[in-house]
Amino acid sequence: MNINELPTPAVVLDYDSLQKNIATMAAIHPGRRLRPHVKAHKCSGIAALQVAAGHNSFTCATPREILGLIDAGVGSDFLLANEVLDHSRLSALADAQNDALITVAIDSDATLAAAVKAGIRSVIIDVNVGLPRCGIDPKSAGELADAARSHGMDVRGVMGYEGHLMMVTDRDAKKQQVHDAMALLASAHSDVGGDIVSAGGTGTHDLFAGTTVNEVQAGSYVLMDTQYAQLGYSFVQAMWVIGTVISTNEKWSVIDVGLKSLGMDHGNPSIKDHSVWFCSDEHITFAANEGTAKPIAGERVFVTPAHIDPTMAMHEVAYVANIYGDIVDEWPIDLRGW
Amino acid sequence: MNINELPTPAVVLDYDSLQKNIATMAAIHPGRRLRPHVKAHKCSGIAALQVAAGHNSFTCATPREILGLIDAGVGSDFLLANEVLDHSRLSALADAQNDALITVAIDSDATLAAAVKAGIRSVIIDVNVGLPRCGIDPKSAGELADAARSHGMDVRGVMGYEGHLMMVTDRDAKKQQVHDAMALLASAHSDVGGDIVSAGGTGTHDLFAGTTVNEVQAGSYVLMDTQYAQLGYSFVQAMWVIGTVISTNEKWSVIDVGLKSLGMDHGNPSIKDHSVWFCSDEHITFAANEGTAKPIAGERVFVTPAHIDPTMAMHEVAYVANIYGDIVDEWPIDLRGW
Repeated sequence: MNINELPTPAVVLDYDSLQKNIATMAAIHPGRRLRPHVKAHKCSGIAALQVAAGHNSFTCATPREILGLIDAGVGSDFLLANEVLDHSRLSALADAQNDALITVAIDSDATLAAAVKAGIRSVIIDVNVGLPRCGIDPKSAGELADAARSHGMDVRGVMGYEGHLMMVTDRDAKKQQVHDAMALLASAHSDVGGDIVSAGGTGTHDLFAGTTVNEVQAGSYVLMDTQYAQLGYSFVQAMWVIGTVISTNEKWSVIDVGLKSLGMDHGNPSIKDHSVWFCSDEHITFAANEGTAKPIAGERVFVTPAHIDPTMAMHEVAYVANIYGDIVDEWPIDLRGW
Repeated sequence: MNINELPTPAVVLDYDSLQKNIATMAAIHPGRRLRPHVKAHKCSGIAALQVAAGHNSFTCATPREILGLIDAGVGSDFLLANEVLDHSRLSALADAQNDALITVAIDSDATLAAAVKAGIRSVIIDVNVGLPRCGIDPKSAGELADAARSHGMDVRGVMGYEGHLMMVTDRDAKKQQVHDAMALLASAHSDVGGDIVSAGGTGTHDLFAGTTVNEVQAGSYVLMDTQYAQLGYSFVQAMWVIGTVISTNEKWSVIDVGLKSLGMDHGNPSIKDHSVWFCSDEHITFAANEGTAKPIAGERVFVTPAHIDPTMAMHEVAYVANIYGDIVDEWPIDLRGW
């Protein structure tokens, strides 16, 4: 089957570009230096390529992501880089501890208590390094680690996500701010102990030289989106939502990709050589730029999302295409949900 | 089970409010005068309540919505108010024509040809009434109807969606603009013939007196969202995404509802008596307003989406609660997909 025969809207991955991005990052952060974040793709088929490139440890945002990877037999060391209080989900993770090394982030007495109650063996202290979200005050990190150890837990180290710095455009300022944030993490680490100092994302992955960070949690680099493309890294777009032109006239055209098949929190998607006017539930209204042929009914159109993570989470399957546009594989987006 | 025991994020419906909204609209547009749009909820359990209130005809945005309602035994007259060129999906609809009356929107020779090829028997002419999206120029509608009849099709009438007018705030101006748009639809109808003149949404449902419109395609009124709430109708919020407080400090709190569980195209969601700071993939960072107690870890929080349609499409199940917060039913959101 070719892309031109796919039922749309459909997620299509460019296999070669995907592998190129994985290889590029593996050269920068080989093996355990990268703990790929699967929340960006939620697809064990992609995670399997990351394992093949040398990464066996993964970052996950939800229990479902960890349990799904274990079910798929992909990876061996999983970090739940998020706070969870749900007893049944934590218990399911605890039950899986004989199948894989599972480490759960905690940032409070409440999250520690929930992990203890569920029988979680390994934790990491999630430290606030400036993003107003989860994470304990760096000054209190050691105390929480001590409390965890008093329950017999293995405290593997610290993590801190400097998400507020991903899109800083001045590179010197960004580096300074990342290093300031990582100084907070290092300070917490000196109180906490353990082997792991985990941080980062695609937008800061190249700024950790001179810090104590020893694993980077990047995820978006594999597939990319228009927001991360602004940063000018060498990662290339490897995923699109494919649509079919269902209506067209002299002034505009409409495809069957809309805001139910695209993450919209970073704004409208892009279509090469065309201007996107607006998105509706099931439609994008767009027009060809000057010098580009007007779309015709039935034609397939490649849509580049503004934000990859929620877009992948909206689809059940990703179609893998070669450079001829032939579909060579179908990978379930099997890590969706919570 | 109570709301406080639900795994989160979770869609919760207030059964009484849902029924109140359905009754309010059924009093305004009883029976076939309303053709409820299921794209807003994608849930056959809710559609069944609309049938119980007297509506047997539904508007759908995707073949999946129609086939799912037929599978669920809900409704008997379905309008695909969208252009589809996909042969396998149109064929699946054609195969279901003995189980229900199925009418497919067409707006071009290409969409007519696709419907003919698949064996679709009934069509409606989708007319552009000002929204730059699908729909044929009103002047060409009669010609397309003639072409459809030449293929032996039943042309049931016209539809036109004045989506660009839903959020006009000046009521007199809005009424005038709706009537101008419906004059275009009436003009097309005089060329097309057929019994149906279908249009409208929740934001214009009360403005059709004096037009030829004989069925209204409203959908959002059942569940509502913060955008439609701005219009001041008597429909009440009947759906929330429930989150659990997973992290909290003196300045802010975090719940496990994020942009993977909320449609974000209309902006941030709302939390009563709190200020929403921002949404991440799996989190909302928010703070209690002055005079409101600070959230505590484990507490459940009701999040009101800015846009109901994409939010429902992100969840597998809706939990139905009574006024005590007890879960009295679970309805699959079974009409998702395409």
